[in-house]
Amino acid sequence: MQFDELNVAVREFCESRDWGQYHTPKDLAIGLVTESSELLELFRFKDRTEQLELLAESEKREDIEDELADILFFLLRFADLYDIDLEAALEQKLEKNGKRYPENEYKGSNEKYDE
Amino acid sequence: MQFDELNVAVREFCESRDWGQYHTPKDLAIGLVTESSELLELFRFKDRTEQLELLAESEKREDIEDELADILFFLLRFADLYDIDLEAALEQKLEKNGKRYPENEYKGSNEKYDE
Amino acid sequence: MQFDELNVAVREFCESRDWGQYHTPKDLAIGLVTESSELLELFRFKDRTEQLELLAESEKREDIEDELADILFFLLRFADLYDIDLEAALEQKLEKNGKRYPENEYKGSNEKYDE
Amino acid sequence: MQFDELNVAVREFCESRDWGQYHTPKDLAIGLVTESSELLELFRFKDRTEQLELLAESEKREDIEDELADILFFLLRFADLYDIDLEAALEQKLEKNGKRYPENEYKGSNEKYDE
Repeated sequence: MQFDELNVAVREFCESRDWGQYHTPKDLAIGLVTESSELLELFRFKDRTEQLELLAESEKREDIEDELADILFFLLRFADLYDIDLEAALEQKLEKNGKRYPENEYKGSNEKYDE
Repeated sequence: MQFDELNVAVREFCESRDWGQYHTPKDLAIGLVTESSELLELFRFKDRTEQLELLAESEKREDIEDELADILFFLLRFADLYDIDLEAALEQKLEKNGKRYPENEYKGSNEKYDE
Repeated sequence: MQFDELNVAVREFCESRDWGQYHTPKDLAIGLVTESSELLELFRFKDRTEQLELLAESEKREDIEDELADILFFLLRFADLYDIDLEAALEQKLEKNGKRYPENEYKGSNEKYDE
Repeated sequence: MQFDELNVAVREFCESRDWGQYHTPKDLAIGLVTESSELLELFRFKDRTEQLELLAESEKREDIEDELADILFFLLRFADLYDIDLEAALEQKLEKNGKRYPENEYKGSNEKYDE
């Protein structure tokens, strides 16, 4: 599948359940925050080694995949309902950040995507 | 662009800046939470009408697009670095949720995606 | 109990379990975000009436109290470990915000604490 | 100041600006999440040493204090408006967690507050 097909799948899923009435911008943003936070909670108090161990355990890995899928669900739903071109938005953001964090300056430095 | 091309663009952006060292699962999850929260903050204390007005103002709309792009950036980066198939994860999640929230039961009811 | 006593209770709870090693500023901030997000998730997709109903159901009310207690736990722990005077910080913040949102101007207006 | 006095200060601050109308449970929970996330963002991509350096720089330390104050503001406001006894909630939570994480078992082990 690609963006367009996933978009359609998410839209049909929501429409067939009449969920549009709940999907205000604020509540979809809440969806994004709460699902991202569930992902983050899996790594709470874990050091780098423990984090990688989680990704290697099949049950935990599935939990991680589930949370990422939930984030993608709300992201596609937000963009579809409020007519935002996600791909164009990301391309523009990369261009903007490309100027903000020039390659040569940041290569090997201690700086990082820190918006 | 499609998923694969966006993935490559994000990967090259990060690699050319040596950011892999910072991109632990935990810190990428922090990226997802903090960018989602910035999106949510735009709608804080706003009612439905005010939320839609934000989406109609070009400057605010650009802020919203920027936050969505940041979320997509971290989502693609997480999936790429830790070898997760986002499309497959979403398809599986929709199937799982399809059983959990059957269409007929939820059509027009007061229930909603509430994971 | 008051702040000081609660502080001591939280400190003893953590020290008797050797948790100091996990309580970096970042991980305590993750604690605050994830517990706040669990609180928020209780209200996701709910309108004002449904939110107040949750507060009136004894089981749900206990969930809400639990999440608020978790937030207070991490807040007191952060302040205690990193030597921050929460009361002074709040007094200063109220003074700062008092200038930013003057009473007369904001009384009855559409503006609100929006930091 | 103590809880009671801080409560009164926060209540008067909000009432003199007519903010009660915006302070639904959901929007106060959004306040808690967004302020906690701003705190977390300060530590994003930072290792333990860098985190402690932030706490030692006076300007950054003030940012941290400001975010903690904002979290306390929304926490007290939520409890005051919806009649929740924060101190009692925390005492009960500590008791509950005391059983869940017995001292002897967890002392020096790799387990931690992980609710």
